[in-house]
Amino acid sequence: MQNRIRAVVFGVGTMNSIATRLLLEKDVDIVGALARSDEKVGKDLGIVAGLDRQLGILIERDARALFERTKPDIAVIAVNSYLEDAQDQLMACAEHGVNVVTLSEEALFPWKTSPKITAEIDALAKKTGATITGTGHQDTYWVNIVAMMMGSCHRIDSVNGTVSWNVDDYGPEVVSLQQVGTTPEQFGEWLASASRPPTFGRNVVDALVADVGLTVVTQTTETRPDIAARPIRSRSTGVEYSPGTVIGFTDVDQVVTEEGITITYQMSGRVYDPHEYDVNEWEINGEPDFSLSNGKVPTQISTCAHLVNRIPDVINAEPGFITIEKLPRLRFRAFPLHTYVK
Amino acid sequence: MQNRIRAVVFGVGTMNSIATRLLLEKDVDIVGALARSDEKVGKDLGIVAGLDRQLGILIERDARALFERTKPDIAVIAVNSYLEDAQDQLMACAEHGVNVVTLSEEALFPWKTSPKITAEIDALAKKTGATITGTGHQDTYWVNIVAMMMGSCHRIDSVNGTVSWNVDDYGPEVVSLQQVGTTPEQFGEWLASASRPPTFGRNVVDALVADVGLTVVTQTTETRPDIAARPIRSRSTGVEYSPGTVIGFTDVDQVVTEEGITITYQMSGRVYDPHEYDVNEWEINGEPDFSLSNGKVPTQISTCAHLVNRIPDVINAEPGFITIEKLPRLRFRAFPLHTYVK
Repeated sequence: MQNRIRAVVFGVGTMNSIATRLLLEKDVDIVGALARSDEKVGKDLGIVAGLDRQLGILIERDARALFERTKPDIAVIAVNSYLEDAQDQLMACAEHGVNVVTLSEEALFPWKTSPKITAEIDALAKKTGATITGTGHQDTYWVNIVAMMMGSCHRIDSVNGTVSWNVDDYGPEVVSLQQVGTTPEQFGEWLASASRPPTFGRNVVDALVADVGLTVVTQTTETRPDIAARPIRSRSTGVEYSPGTVIGFTDVDQVVTEEGITITYQMSGRVYDPHEYDVNEWEINGEPDFSLSNGKVPTQISTCAHLVNRIPDVINAEPGFITIEKLPRLRFRAFPLHTYVK
Repeated sequence: MQNRIRAVVFGVGTMNSIATRLLLEKDVDIVGALARSDEKVGKDLGIVAGLDRQLGILIERDARALFERTKPDIAVIAVNSYLEDAQDQLMACAEHGVNVVTLSEEALFPWKTSPKITAEIDALAKKTGATITGTGHQDTYWVNIVAMMMGSCHRIDSVNGTVSWNVDDYGPEVVSLQQVGTTPEQFGEWLASASRPPTFGRNVVDALVADVGLTVVTQTTETRPDIAARPIRSRSTGVEYSPGTVIGFTDVDQVVTEEGITITYQMSGRVYDPHEYDVNEWEINGEPDFSLSNGKVPTQISTCAHLVNRIPDVINAEPGFITIEKLPRLRFRAFPLHTYVK
């Protein structure tokens, strides 16, 4: 019998507070927790994660010291979005041979947007036997389910996806990254000076292209601000934004491939009006045509469930920076998570 | 480099006529074709399949003689639906070490409905190195896409699927199996005396349960006739059925599992009114809830594309009766099919 899985909760914000409960419900042993802020460090994980009970796990600040002491099987990371910001966390894990699932959006497929950092983490992880994987809602709904539908086609001319997510579901860090509360002028300046891809549609399309095995001829990104048409209140910041204020943005990522397939992916991350909900809509044109709609999409919980359900696949995988096209199709975890580890 | 794939087209009806074109467009070498009827045997496959050109392949009747002479890599079978009827074809393939993709609906997961025949074919295939797999539209849309969505859930209480298909898309054999044109009384007598599961919803649910790794506590099937409410013409038979006539039937297959998940699958195969189309609608209730709709579903072409696109997976798989939960996630075949063979 496989031993129970020993996990570290890395970052205790909105998402990992949910993931903490899911891990416990799947019989994972949480052996440590990490956060940056003074309000969290030293407090019990159960209290900070809103479980209304102590878990006997005091939140710490020093990842390397925690890994050294507890030797966990996996770190569940929910801290930031870009690989540049995540580099030190991932290197700390790789150094100590600790496997990683992270919801860092760029980590879904960072080989093209941050090739140097990715290769560095990959090389170290291969040495120590760690597997580093980015996952989340996008794993199934923006990549695998689309690639699976593509697999059922004889010929494909174009693939068109339209998705949205509510920035209020992901905490203040994401609200700020989405430029919520800026003016259109400030947004334009930010966009003109952005040193990195402004969002993660690029990484989703890169993951899909890698999964299907296509070769990119041209790749473009267009970014436009989403502007409040009427006063709109953010749950996350508590601020009511007046009409004309930026409440997020929409990216349109497009690739044209050597194989004659054009993939267009439009993703909007913004503050929602009360009547709005997350969508996931796809159309494939070819022989035959296919469409897909997931109705009202629970992106937030889905991301947390992916973080947890992917853990056995990540532990079972080869070492290195292993992106999702190299993992098996995700399966439901009806039993304690360690029973799925080979 | 892998050699080109050598295929035999086994059965030249509605479905394999389409599959013949798809195989050629994916650079598969068709080395033989098999049919039963006097109108087809001796004629050129290209003409019978409606390609308007000769392929230099004369349709034969004797599978064993053809396999002996041509030693194909794969037989693409589109002849019948039940394993009892398909047994001799599959044994002929297994005897000669010829891999199989078949659209036989029961073959999708026959281990529970025909365990003895399946085990016999499995044992022989293992000896000769052949892989036998049932696939079709149901592979992706009624099993894998559902299991993948289940994989994105933390907890599942119930899974509900509603699908339909137009019997007119599959030729007269299927029209007859669906009891089209009978009276409700005749239907009732047929149902009461049926020695085998009246339809294939059972096999879809069995495949899904096997994929997810659940244990069945109870399993039920309810079958009700679909009755014409107004005159309705079948494209396939050319007959106009009067109100009150049976135009197909609907099955509701339900399993309750030890893991607390109830799966309910409702499938209707009937003659359509002009405004009707195939549907694929799923709801998962749990944490979180998920729904899926594929809009207007092209079930017929999808089945043919699965027959072709699954060939590399089947050739790559271990020998035996290998059901789809043991195959990798289906991928689009952008390149000649043999380039995907390991």
